[in-house]
Amino acid sequence: MTTIPKKITISWLKEAYASKKLTPWELMREIVKRAGEEKQRNIWILPPVEEFLSPYLSYLETMPEDLPLWGIPFAIKDNIDLAGVPTTAACPDYAYVPKRSAAVVQKLIDAGAIPVGKTNLDQFATGLVGTRSPYGECHNALNEELISGGSSSGSAVSVACGMAAFALGTDTAGSGRVPAMLNGLVGFKPALGAWSTRGVVPACASLDCVTVFSNTLEDAEAVNEEAMGYDSDCIWSRQYDAVKKNIPKKVFLPETKPTFFGDYKEIMEKKWDTAVARVRSLGIPCEEIDYQMFYDAARILYDGSYVAERWADLGDFVTRHENSVFPVTKKILMSGAAPDKTATGLFGDLHALQAYRHKAAEILRDAVMIMPTTGGTFTRDQVREDPVETNSLMGLYTNHCNLLDFVACAVPENVNDTEIPFGITIFALSQNTGLVLKSAEEFLAQ
Amino acid sequence: MTTIPKKITISWLKEAYASKKLTPWELMREIVKRAGEEKQRNIWILPPVEEFLSPYLSYLETMPEDLPLWGIPFAIKDNIDLAGVPTTAACPDYAYVPKRSAAVVQKLIDAGAIPVGKTNLDQFATGLVGTRSPYGECHNALNEELISGGSSSGSAVSVACGMAAFALGTDTAGSGRVPAMLNGLVGFKPALGAWSTRGVVPACASLDCVTVFSNTLEDAEAVNEEAMGYDSDCIWSRQYDAVKKNIPKKVFLPETKPTFFGDYKEIMEKKWDTAVARVRSLGIPCEEIDYQMFYDAARILYDGSYVAERWADLGDFVTRHENSVFPVTKKILMSGAAPDKTATGLFGDLHALQAYRHKAAEILRDAVMIMPTTGGTFTRDQVREDPVETNSLMGLYTNHCNLLDFVACAVPENVNDTEIPFGITIFALSQNTGLVLKSAEEFLAQ
Repeated sequence: MTTIPKKITISWLKEAYASKKLTPWELMREIVKRAGEEKQRNIWILPPVEEFLSPYLSYLETMPEDLPLWGIPFAIKDNIDLAGVPTTAACPDYAYVPKRSAAVVQKLIDAGAIPVGKTNLDQFATGLVGTRSPYGECHNALNEELISGGSSSGSAVSVACGMAAFALGTDTAGSGRVPAMLNGLVGFKPALGAWSTRGVVPACASLDCVTVFSNTLEDAEAVNEEAMGYDSDCIWSRQYDAVKKNIPKKVFLPETKPTFFGDYKEIMEKKWDTAVARVRSLGIPCEEIDYQMFYDAARILYDGSYVAERWADLGDFVTRHENSVFPVTKKILMSGAAPDKTATGLFGDLHALQAYRHKAAEILRDAVMIMPTTGGTFTRDQVREDPVETNSLMGLYTNHCNLLDFVACAVPENVNDTEIPFGITIFALSQNTGLVLKSAEEFLAQ
Repeated sequence: MTTIPKKITISWLKEAYASKKLTPWELMREIVKRAGEEKQRNIWILPPVEEFLSPYLSYLETMPEDLPLWGIPFAIKDNIDLAGVPTTAACPDYAYVPKRSAAVVQKLIDAGAIPVGKTNLDQFATGLVGTRSPYGECHNALNEELISGGSSSGSAVSVACGMAAFALGTDTAGSGRVPAMLNGLVGFKPALGAWSTRGVVPACASLDCVTVFSNTLEDAEAVNEEAMGYDSDCIWSRQYDAVKKNIPKKVFLPETKPTFFGDYKEIMEKKWDTAVARVRSLGIPCEEIDYQMFYDAARILYDGSYVAERWADLGDFVTRHENSVFPVTKKILMSGAAPDKTATGLFGDLHALQAYRHKAAEILRDAVMIMPTTGGTFTRDQVREDPVETNSLMGLYTNHCNLLDFVACAVPENVNDTEIPFGITIFALSQNTGLVLKSAEEFLAQ
């Protein structure tokens, strides 16, 4: 058996399988071993173990080896259903055992991918830190004292620690992007409705997306190819034209320097300057944009009425199981039921949001916008001390995205940096996935 | 001067102008005369008078006569702005004088059409009866004892009584369709965002449409050609593909006989049977559909949280001017601020609505659906006795339409019937305007 690298990529695996240097069974044993060695990181809710993995590997033997994801191991955030094992959403009392896998999971399995386990998350996908879980604080892959980012914490860290070639996350406010940056990964957040959300525990159902973490952009694209597509059984599913990877007409960069925070803010600011210089060297016309409207739109998510969307789907459970819910999560969810959260207020927010969406659609027509994925990070200790404010800061450049109907891809500023994680996110209108992917490709190639 | 027919059509006018049998000034004098003769019908808030019309006619003389609507007189519902004259929304204390005309009005004027006056309506476009106005109950064009239908009451009656070739209405719950049927007209309700709503007093801003009433389908189409189009200054504006008039793959008819009501219910039921027989003879495959989901979706408009959308835009005014608002209108609007109208409840409704929209989109893909425009009518006396229940009944087959993102066209069952008005409405998904127009054409030609 060949030595399996820490960063498992689809192309490496395909080559190793084709040249018979590796079998899926050998890969599985390595993954199980790695998961055992890294237990203290709190990556898994259902970890990779042989009894669980064996049936999938046996099934794989019956499938044609030329399937696009044949033998590719992937991790699943534990708010996404995998048939026959509990979905907890990081709340043990919420757990149920689904009969069917989530639509996206089934598509990936049908394409030959192997689910290796269910990953830890900020409970009910509410958070951007990765510490809000009764299954333990998820440790960052580069530096265990740091937060992993959330809410798709375990998914990102499982890939970064070599236990999966890719992992599924979800993203309502930034959960598919923040942990990508903090663990040195690519995080692709499809457009609303581009991937089915059938079989996913709702956060804000109208804004939820399933996402992918991977070591390379091409792997994220390979997964997107299999996972995307209209689902007639998913009420949020949308029809999109085929993805055309074109260079955008324009790149928008923030007019004023973004805010950086935390212990590494000077370093991150420098990395941002480097990233901007690289973007400017791509040969695409760059223009500066006042970021204020994106901040303003973003406020609607937590300061406005949207918390009530979480309460609409989870309120019954929380009311009946007050003690089952993580304290900070409970506080946030319950704010959705506050007396000031009226239908009139929500319509006011929806009208304001429509104005922002309309304006963003006018501005970004054939363009992309680039921002830091997040402006800093914290130690797990720091987050424990001030769980709400630290979490808010993490979302400064992410919260607007789904509200404004954007597609986004978070990419590392430097894929070889294993010390201080930093990355940028490329945004475009939902119909412009190809502009985002092409821009990301150009940036990474520079 | 030639005799001007009671039913003024665009083609008749174009011919009369071209052959010099009529000038716009002569037409104007006839319209002013007719308006004077029919004062008791309460059609107008700002009636056609010479001082008002003259500047438009002088301006018309500077415009090329080959403009598509050159010299065509049209009426404007008084919740749509016409520059320089008050917009009242049938609430005198609400009145303001807009500097600019509504986007759609300006487009029509630019195409050569002549605004002749502002029409009466159910106050704040809240109602389907045409009696909820301090400017008087609008009388039906066929039988003055009957309601005109609303909320676009005056607009419909102005066309039916020969004071305009077409009129603009608005439609949130059915206001562009019910008065069309009750006055023997065609009523075309464009898809959401297909016509700009900039310069229109909001009812439910996310559902409001500007509409057209006319004597013939081709006139409605001619107006649609000029009025439609993306408006970058209207946050609700949407991009649509060009209208392709195709025969639908399928026509859906209700599985069970619709409910008819009021003094003419037997006659209307027979007319419906005749209409259904005609639809079945068109040579398009017909299928029956359970109408229940459309009823269920419709309930969200008034029984659910959507009244709060009216309150979001009008609540401030109503609170400050309690005595300025028509009693039944005030009661309805204020229900939007009731304590049970929570953001959580609204999200619940929005999720339910998304499920209905998704299902409707699956079912109607290449099809149209046909229902009675309304299942009966009432005398003005009957509505005065029970203003809420009568109004509700009028909307049985209209309220689902905008919630489900449909385009619709109401057509008379028999254009020559001047006694008991009856008509059908053809519905399709918002992107399928061409299927609706083509079906209407086939139905009328049969």
